[in-house]
Amino acid sequence: MDFELTLDKVLRHAEAVHGDQEIVSCRPDGTQDRYHFRDLAQRARKLAAALLEAGLQPGERVASLMWNNSAHLEAYYAVPLAGGILHTVNVRFRPEEIAYVLNDAGSRFLIVDDILLDLWAKAAQACTVERVFVHAYERDDGTCADGTESYSDFLNSASSVPLRELTDERAGATLCYTGGTTGRPKGVVYSHRALFLHALTEMSSSGFAYGVNDVVLPAVPMFHVNAWGIPYSAIMSGAKLILPGPSVNGAALHRLVAKENVTFMAGVPTVWSNFLEFLNEGKAENSCQDLRILTGGAAPHKALIEGLDRYNIKIFQGWGMTETSGVVAVSQLKPNLGKAPQDRTSILTKQGLPLPIAQVRLVEDGAVSSNRGMRPVGAIEVRGTSVTGSYLHGLKPEKWTADGWLRTGDIGEIDEFGYLTILEREEDLIKSGGEWIVPRDIEDVIMENKWVEACAVVARPDLRWGERPVAFVVPAGDQPTDWSSVKETLEARFPRYWLPDDFIPQSALPCTSLGKIDRKKLKQQLLEAAEDVLACHGDTEGN
Amino acid sequence: MDFELTLDKVLRHAEAVHGDQEIVSCRPDGTQDRYHFRDLAQRARKLAAALLEAGLQPGERVASLMWNNSAHLEAYYAVPLAGGILHTVNVRFRPEEIAYVLNDAGSRFLIVDDILLDLWAKAAQACTVERVFVHAYERDDGTCADGTESYSDFLNSASSVPLRELTDERAGATLCYTGGTTGRPKGVVYSHRALFLHALTEMSSSGFAYGVNDVVLPAVPMFHVNAWGIPYSAIMSGAKLILPGPSVNGAALHRLVAKENVTFMAGVPTVWSNFLEFLNEGKAENSCQDLRILTGGAAPHKALIEGLDRYNIKIFQGWGMTETSGVVAVSQLKPNLGKAPQDRTSILTKQGLPLPIAQVRLVEDGAVSSNRGMRPVGAIEVRGTSVTGSYLHGLKPEKWTADGWLRTGDIGEIDEFGYLTILEREEDLIKSGGEWIVPRDIEDVIMENKWVEACAVVARPDLRWGERPVAFVVPAGDQPTDWSSVKETLEARFPRYWLPDDFIPQSALPCTSLGKIDRKKLKQQLLEAAEDVLACHGDTEGN
Repeated sequence: MDFELTLDKVLRHAEAVHGDQEIVSCRPDGTQDRYHFRDLAQRARKLAAALLEAGLQPGERVASLMWNNSAHLEAYYAVPLAGGILHTVNVRFRPEEIAYVLNDAGSRFLIVDDILLDLWAKAAQACTVERVFVHAYERDDGTCADGTESYSDFLNSASSVPLRELTDERAGATLCYTGGTTGRPKGVVYSHRALFLHALTEMSSSGFAYGVNDVVLPAVPMFHVNAWGIPYSAIMSGAKLILPGPSVNGAALHRLVAKENVTFMAGVPTVWSNFLEFLNEGKAENSCQDLRILTGGAAPHKALIEGLDRYNIKIFQGWGMTETSGVVAVSQLKPNLGKAPQDRTSILTKQGLPLPIAQVRLVEDGAVSSNRGMRPVGAIEVRGTSVTGSYLHGLKPEKWTADGWLRTGDIGEIDEFGYLTILEREEDLIKSGGEWIVPRDIEDVIMENKWVEACAVVARPDLRWGERPVAFVVPAGDQPTDWSSVKETLEARFPRYWLPDDFIPQSALPCTSLGKIDRKKLKQQLLEAAEDVLACHGDTEGN
Repeated sequence: MDFELTLDKVLRHAEAVHGDQEIVSCRPDGTQDRYHFRDLAQRARKLAAALLEAGLQPGERVASLMWNNSAHLEAYYAVPLAGGILHTVNVRFRPEEIAYVLNDAGSRFLIVDDILLDLWAKAAQACTVERVFVHAYERDDGTCADGTESYSDFLNSASSVPLRELTDERAGATLCYTGGTTGRPKGVVYSHRALFLHALTEMSSSGFAYGVNDVVLPAVPMFHVNAWGIPYSAIMSGAKLILPGPSVNGAALHRLVAKENVTFMAGVPTVWSNFLEFLNEGKAENSCQDLRILTGGAAPHKALIEGLDRYNIKIFQGWGMTETSGVVAVSQLKPNLGKAPQDRTSILTKQGLPLPIAQVRLVEDGAVSSNRGMRPVGAIEVRGTSVTGSYLHGLKPEKWTADGWLRTGDIGEIDEFGYLTILEREEDLIKSGGEWIVPRDIEDVIMENKWVEACAVVARPDLRWGERPVAFVVPAGDQPTDWSSVKETLEARFPRYWLPDDFIPQSALPCTSLGKIDRKKLKQQLLEAAEDVLACHGDTEGN
């Protein structure tokens, strides 16, 4: 008799209440497929029935290797409807990683976009997947590569088996793997309850607040933390949904914004930098006055926020992790804050206000900060309806505290208005004489000097203070260096102990494979130099 | 380790994320108390601690006999925080009804507004309540009537006992009694889960969508189905909350709208008719351009919607019952519908689109309508996270179907866009020759004739057709009657079998104690007349 929060209810709601709303799915050639929520419901039920007839058992995995398109959306609903778990595979993983996660998850079936078959071919040999269904972006002529089957034939093969209503909101529904900066990717299973509540919260004023009057475009890939939950929340809300396919460059997105009157887009800062560049080229004919942009996945640069603000595009930030189903905090503006553009930017660079279904706490030296009065700083721990309590196979249990909070590995602060700011990855922060120093804040000020092209502030081990900051600075080729101005600006803005002990000129900074500054390498470099010093010093002490 | 949906989380969220938001509570003399969400959190915790120290056991009831004020709001959070159930008593009940529900609920403690002490005195003798705490609207001088104690003294008596986190979202949190048109009022217990999800949904685009930029005023009393959930959803959303006290006449509300920049109000149609009258008097200096009004509790007249529309006030409708925690459907406008004012009115008089946490189905002749294609008509049944599964003490189990749906007792239709319309109370609809006839539709057309002041169409038993419609019509005193024009307009608009068999002039229509037309009495009148005819007819047949 209970009304469990399961995804079949979302689909039923979409069909009964918003059946006439449209879904637009873009093909790689720029043409579009259009259909309605009621068609999605019908096709998802067919696919679910086909999966059940193919022998899918409760809790078994079906994998997808797909871009943002209508077939992927069908799988988002159909696999959970059939009692299975949709495992969305990151198409940017290397073939051996793809094989690893497919085998680790034990995925029985795979749905793959035709344009990703070359990638799949490189992973296929090492995989235990039983059946592979190919989603043909172009008209499906029924021919398929060896060992694969047609997605549409499979979907249409279903008898009209009535599906049973799902009765357990705590059952798994989807599965993503973390990027895994250290070690192998780790699986995170999302329950029906986690996804339902996350979707409902995204529809709320604390989230993205979109509804029947909105046109929503997730530029974030659907293999990336359920596209931050948007394929569930947009459908639940009755918003028109635009699935952009593989192309999310500035020109392609702007074309869709103009053609479909998009009011909401979501993606990573790189996508928006590209979008802003396109706008700056002045070729865009239509304004983007009604457009809101959610940026997430990495902290946005101030310049990006200010740049889009000039076009009256309302940009705001969502913060979350693979482990949190999507967003945990959203940088919405409170009234009386952010009236002036510079105040707005300052608030929008914060990670934002925690959602009602989540809690955030800061822990320093083993104690929880009171979250009141002065701005507490500490290691960020989160919990909530949509925060997972474990990794697949119970890996790394130390990520969770004994009372069930997720250790995010980030250091943050909460201001007097409740806004969370992530200051640094825990391992990147500098602790000098028992006090925290925030490298990113120092870097921001160094970067204000026009002759600086890039910089990184990292910790050097120090016998007296524990750690001390050191700045690596890359000068722009065409301008004269001015070290004294850098030091003066820093002295004017920070306490003495924040000032880097050394400024080391570099021709370039080392980067990780994801394009981020490789701070580990820089620290290692300092460590090795310091160890020599410490070793000498130790010898002296020993005498 | 689970994150249960309990009301202590709402309070914690309000404090941590929206601690600086304001609550304005109005006294009967028009002055106001102002404090912040963080003060509410602190005081609610104190009250909870005091209740626990007074011996409140899990699941026990604490009653309130109060208007919309800050002390009532404190009780809304404190009683559930202490593990108890807040029983909000309708101050419009007769003293013997008040005594009945207090005893039926077994409420141990009662909090009462000082201005309601006279009412309480009339019920007190018959009640088993152990302790009575008086909330003094004016400054509390510590003196209390015999047998009562000071609310503020009680609240402040608490030691700072840290409260345990609640761990069962299915536990009861609040309790309301139905108005009970037939028989005794019946108790409905709302769980933490029901209230949390209802609040989150009200914050969503499918609900009221209010957030940090809104100023929310519940004109619906807090003893009426948790004021439709607004004291939970507004606080959860971070909206500024205005509690109007006992006065919700047009002038008082307009004063608050102007002073506090209210953006959202909720109440019954009578309140809005009064508000509209005030606007029509032309004394209002400020415009209400940013104002949205939710009307609920009864179907609004077209004239009310059109009247407020002329002031650019966005009025919309919410539909729900005591048994559904608050709203089940909201008449939000879909894009491309309701562009013209008359279309807008037509949509806004519908009960609206069901929320994502609820399902609505229509049942006719024991079968569920498909909800597709043609507009199905049938008995409305609902279920959802916030629809109760039983009455207190298990009364009237026949209100629920075997598969757990609530039988609302209303007849409705669902149109091709998903909008639910309540056509009639089940007992008021007319079935003639197997076809439904909707009295309200016929009445609307009769009322278009200016010489008609009031009318009611009810069923007369009919040997051949089962039932036939008959119209009771009250002419306006100052205008000549024109029966033929009434008949012509009906003939032009309805199928033949909808036309009333008789038009019976009346000087006035009988009313119930709630001011609604007493259709039962009119039907009884027709039934008695018809029985005479049938009796004669029967005799004839028998010959």
